[in-house]
Amino acid sequence: MSGGNQQITFLRSPRGLPVPEDFGAAEVDIPTPGAGQFLSRTIYLSLDPYYRNVMKNSQIYADRLAPGDVMVGETVAEIVESRHPEFKNGDVVAVRNGWQQYATSDGQGVRKIDPTLASVSTALGVLGMPGLTGYAGTVFLAQPLPGQTFVVSACTGPVGCTAGQVARHMGARVVGIAGSKEKCDYAVRELGFDACVDYREGDLRAQLKAACPNGIDAYFDNVGGATLEAVTLNLAMGARIVLCGMIEAYSMDTPPPGPWLGPLVGARATMKGLVVYDHMNRLPEMTRVIARWIHEGSFRWKEDISEGLDRAPEAFCRLMRGQNFGKSLVQIGAAPQS
Amino acid sequence: MSGGNQQITFLRSPRGLPVPEDFGAAEVDIPTPGAGQFLSRTIYLSLDPYYRNVMKNSQIYADRLAPGDVMVGETVAEIVESRHPEFKNGDVVAVRNGWQQYATSDGQGVRKIDPTLASVSTALGVLGMPGLTGYAGTVFLAQPLPGQTFVVSACTGPVGCTAGQVARHMGARVVGIAGSKEKCDYAVRELGFDACVDYREGDLRAQLKAACPNGIDAYFDNVGGATLEAVTLNLAMGARIVLCGMIEAYSMDTPPPGPWLGPLVGARATMKGLVVYDHMNRLPEMTRVIARWIHEGSFRWKEDISEGLDRAPEAFCRLMRGQNFGKSLVQIGAAPQS
Repeated sequence: MSGGNQQITFLRSPRGLPVPEDFGAAEVDIPTPGAGQFLSRTIYLSLDPYYRNVMKNSQIYADRLAPGDVMVGETVAEIVESRHPEFKNGDVVAVRNGWQQYATSDGQGVRKIDPTLASVSTALGVLGMPGLTGYAGTVFLAQPLPGQTFVVSACTGPVGCTAGQVARHMGARVVGIAGSKEKCDYAVRELGFDACVDYREGDLRAQLKAACPNGIDAYFDNVGGATLEAVTLNLAMGARIVLCGMIEAYSMDTPPPGPWLGPLVGARATMKGLVVYDHMNRLPEMTRVIARWIHEGSFRWKEDISEGLDRAPEAFCRLMRGQNFGKSLVQIGAAPQS
Repeated sequence: MSGGNQQITFLRSPRGLPVPEDFGAAEVDIPTPGAGQFLSRTIYLSLDPYYRNVMKNSQIYADRLAPGDVMVGETVAEIVESRHPEFKNGDVVAVRNGWQQYATSDGQGVRKIDPTLASVSTALGVLGMPGLTGYAGTVFLAQPLPGQTFVVSACTGPVGCTAGQVARHMGARVVGIAGSKEKCDYAVRELGFDACVDYREGDLRAQLKAACPNGIDAYFDNVGGATLEAVTLNLAMGARIVLCGMIEAYSMDTPPPGPWLGPLVGARATMKGLVVYDHMNRLPEMTRVIARWIHEGSFRWKEDISEGLDRAPEAFCRLMRGQNFGKSLVQIGAAPQS
């Protein structure tokens, strides 16, 4: 086959927030799987803030990109030609195909998806790495007790909505932080949060004080910056803060300072860094627990799906500006018949 | 009696670092103990950085000072006239007499001192609140394991020297941070630390990297600021940071920002706030453990004693500039015959 595999490539490291011009496009041949490999066609591409760090050539991530390289990224794909003993044509898998229509894989790190649990797109969201992040950070690090106040930022995204709903299922009072009235309404009405504050309305410290009159017992931080600072000024005694993401810093060349830490001493608070890869062994448990809640109708999520690979750069830029609403995905190929 | 009780008073809130002119002096009558009270004469006055916060009228501390009030503070004193059933004349006690020669007390919060363990001045240092701070923060929060690298700042002070020597007795490799070659030499030669870096020599990040080639597993932070930041850039996986004091911030009206917290995520680090009052029930245990090490000759400390109450303001200002060497004390009266 000649051509037929559209790609979005890395062109240059963004300055500050990414713009579509930081990406390129290419068309290459559809690859042929070798022995022990399979070829898959991409259905959904996941857009995640950490790609901005990869584009920075940060030493934090193993991936490195040179100009012209296809952008890395998690995808859900359908196997179309398997020469691998453990995968067969028609299998739907979570695989790192990157920003392209087709890729081969030797099966390493590839996970088969059960399409009966929920839409296969959830393998990139609440039933994938973002969901595991929210689940493990809440269950094993933040550990809200019944009746305690649990706060989560970026609360309508896949990490935040999972963290908040897990905390709700653990008996906590859940307060979200989001960036619009629409998102806050969704968090309360659909996700079952007890309250949600819109940081764009200003004076987040006072808003949190009103929403959390007994202080914040546990905070799942997806954003850092001024939001984290406002939380530190509302801590309850013995509070736990889980540091998960610092989205605003991903677009900075020099990391910003953190909040004044004095309030952590007064509150005898604990702050912990969360890296989801430490909790990979919990993936089956998380899938079982959340799939049951989905089946019962007590766990929801939202997806923000752009159509077509060529829309991926703009969708990613929207995500980094906080203008997405729900898990940011790009649909690249048709979903399989279920 | 008319007069006879010299006092140092609070005159005004300092601007930045305190100066002797922030204090006043007075002479009042020696008070007479009522029923259920005792009168004691102050032997040693403890100088502690947190007084600077009290002078700020910070809401963190219950004590409030109005101009003309005698300065608050911990002291060691000898009871000279007891009308309290549990205390007798000649008892040496740890009591909050403040910056004055005599005071009465109803015995609340007063602790009798065993003068056979060590100099009674240690009740204000390694066998008092500072020692308990270093002990509890190390044993219960930092929890260094044998062979792990434990770092402590302000390491020749009573909190730091206790934390470091406790960590050494727990089998850790101990690296101090101090502000002069003299202090560093003392930490290695007398306190038995494995290394000590002088932050005044610059590039603390590189100095710590050289002294802690496998990273820092536990850090007992007495200072905050740039020192804390340099530590965060040298963390080992799973590191614990105990936040205890932030001396530089005590002299600021607006608290400074903290360090960029990204490295805590990468290191899966835990940061905990320590308030010694939570660990008061450990005081007998700490006293027993450290008194035994003192008896064996494997626990040392240093005192920086000024002579005479009138020297207290200048000694306190020296402490806040980091120019003391060892536990800062003012001797106000003769020690009892032992």
